[in-house]
Amino acid sequence: MVDSIRSIPSRNTEAGEQTRRRLDELTKPPGSLGELENIAIELAEMTGEPSYQPGPPAILVFAADHGLAAAGVSAYPQVVTKQMVQNFAAGGAAINILAKQIGAQLTITDVGLTEPVDNHQVSNQRVAFGTKNPLESPAMSEAEASAAIQSGLTAVDDAVQAGAKSIIPGEMGIGNTASASLMLAALSELPVAQLVGPGTGLDHSGVKKKREVLEEVMRVRRPQAYAPFQALQEVGGFEIAAMSGAVIAAASHRVPILLDGFISTVAALTAVRLQPEVREYLIAGHRSCEPGHEAALEALRLTPLLDLRLRLGEGTGAALAYPVIASAAELCRGMATFTEAGVEK
Amino acid sequence: MVDSIRSIPSRNTEAGEQTRRRLDELTKPPGSLGELENIAIELAEMTGEPSYQPGPPAILVFAADHGLAAAGVSAYPQVVTKQMVQNFAAGGAAINILAKQIGAQLTITDVGLTEPVDNHQVSNQRVAFGTKNPLESPAMSEAEASAAIQSGLTAVDDAVQAGAKSIIPGEMGIGNTASASLMLAALSELPVAQLVGPGTGLDHSGVKKKREVLEEVMRVRRPQAYAPFQALQEVGGFEIAAMSGAVIAAASHRVPILLDGFISTVAALTAVRLQPEVREYLIAGHRSCEPGHEAALEALRLTPLLDLRLRLGEGTGAALAYPVIASAAELCRGMATFTEAGVEK
Repeated sequence: MVDSIRSIPSRNTEAGEQTRRRLDELTKPPGSLGELENIAIELAEMTGEPSYQPGPPAILVFAADHGLAAAGVSAYPQVVTKQMVQNFAAGGAAINILAKQIGAQLTITDVGLTEPVDNHQVSNQRVAFGTKNPLESPAMSEAEASAAIQSGLTAVDDAVQAGAKSIIPGEMGIGNTASASLMLAALSELPVAQLVGPGTGLDHSGVKKKREVLEEVMRVRRPQAYAPFQALQEVGGFEIAAMSGAVIAAASHRVPILLDGFISTVAALTAVRLQPEVREYLIAGHRSCEPGHEAALEALRLTPLLDLRLRLGEGTGAALAYPVIASAAELCRGMATFTEAGVEK
Repeated sequence: MVDSIRSIPSRNTEAGEQTRRRLDELTKPPGSLGELENIAIELAEMTGEPSYQPGPPAILVFAADHGLAAAGVSAYPQVVTKQMVQNFAAGGAAINILAKQIGAQLTITDVGLTEPVDNHQVSNQRVAFGTKNPLESPAMSEAEASAAIQSGLTAVDDAVQAGAKSIIPGEMGIGNTASASLMLAALSELPVAQLVGPGTGLDHSGVKKKREVLEEVMRVRRPQAYAPFQALQEVGGFEIAAMSGAVIAAASHRVPILLDGFISTVAALTAVRLQPEVREYLIAGHRSCEPGHEAALEALRLTPLLDLRLRLGEGTGAALAYPVIASAAELCRGMATFTEAGVEK
């Protein structure tokens, strides 16, 4: 097993109760801020601080390649993983723009590209040159899975040390919806055929082929819900493992985690199966178009804040949701009470 | 009729087409930004500028009192309208916090409070000391309706002159969900009973009473869909009329309008019935809990960006949606193309 799993503190229900009472004193009809009131209470419970501010957030993008890409499960060639990492480093990707808008520190970590990227903006934590093809062997060894998880733990430890008040895990990896579908099939015990989707944009016949490949992988590798760490080795990806580590580390620091779409949510589910208390530090940012996302959200009993039919990854859906949680916190902190404002209750 | 209705330019489909082409060149799978891509195209069509930035936005809150409040249709006493206007002036309300977060200029206009607010932060455009009780007489005269619309037109003209790139109309007025339900019943020709809700927080018996009062008003006043300006006089409110004017003025300047909840959307529907081309400049910010909101959105064929179970008004739901449209525009402008980034398409 992983030796680096942390102990996770319980939520602080007293801090949540203080926030609930304050919300009812603010100059608005009780409950009229809807989901924002729940978010403010959850932030207080997670952090133990009744007026917690989630900014600045840190966006941590983990990139890796997938041996399964050789089986033709993506609309894009594998080299695009590296090219997009270079794009992140140059500031041209969607997540760069959104990180700037929300004042987030953005870090890019190579946890397993097939080719190195020579750029000081990219942290080299490469575990291997891509996973192995799970049609032929386990995707990674136990040591590799541990190392990938550890890279996520370390990245979040560093971000929290540098002042991050909330964490957005993001990813890049051609073929990673395939790996995430396999992990989810294992962890949810649903048929993988139900959890396969177009990813970055497969057409109907592409999805059909992907489904056949993933069904074959499930037959060959037999990942099991009761053994999540083993499942990660059999069918996972390095960036998925790293995001699981990131989620565990954030929870260990009582730092709220804002989840992006399908792959992030599957990584969070993996983390929760390794360490169930982690669930209490998760907020679902948005509902992705990728069909398996719903099952992943259900397995975690999470309802997303946004539903804008995104399917981009990188952390983008979570970054778009960030202003909602920032507003929830700021309203709770900044609004006048009925007494202060002289408004009849 | 109103003499101040403006001519409204058509959308610029060529600018929209340019934006659509650019979106397909950006380093992301085609269509993967979902609703944000539609928004970017709509902003371009509305404004004629392929890289339009919607900031800074202006939030214009119109406040007025309702004669119908005497019939007991709200959970709060009428004096709360004035008290909340004072709270806006002092910076303690929800909309103040959100305006600051999105960098919006916020103006508060008194279009018909029963008691004056002596504060230089509040623009005094009072048409009358509240509307009349429509159980007894039309809520306002023709001249009053024109003056209230004019105050909205002028407020937006001033805001656009001062540099506003998008407009968020907001409101405060105890009793105004009742007036909005009446207007919507008239304009949609749906039974008012279907369009009545708890507003700021009526309980079951309060809603029942409100429904009976509104049915009685509809019998007595008989506002008609084919005569929207007359309907406004019979059952409208000064802040609803002013918001209609605000919407018309923004459309006349090709400035996008981000709608809040039930009352704002009914005001926009009123504007559209006065001047149908205005519809092309509307973006729905959020889906309110107030049950009539859905019918108002359907009448305008609008789908909201957010669904966070808010029911506060003031412009808050639109202000929360603003970062989404700002991100749509910024992604379109700032992301690298496949060619620029050297990423395979």
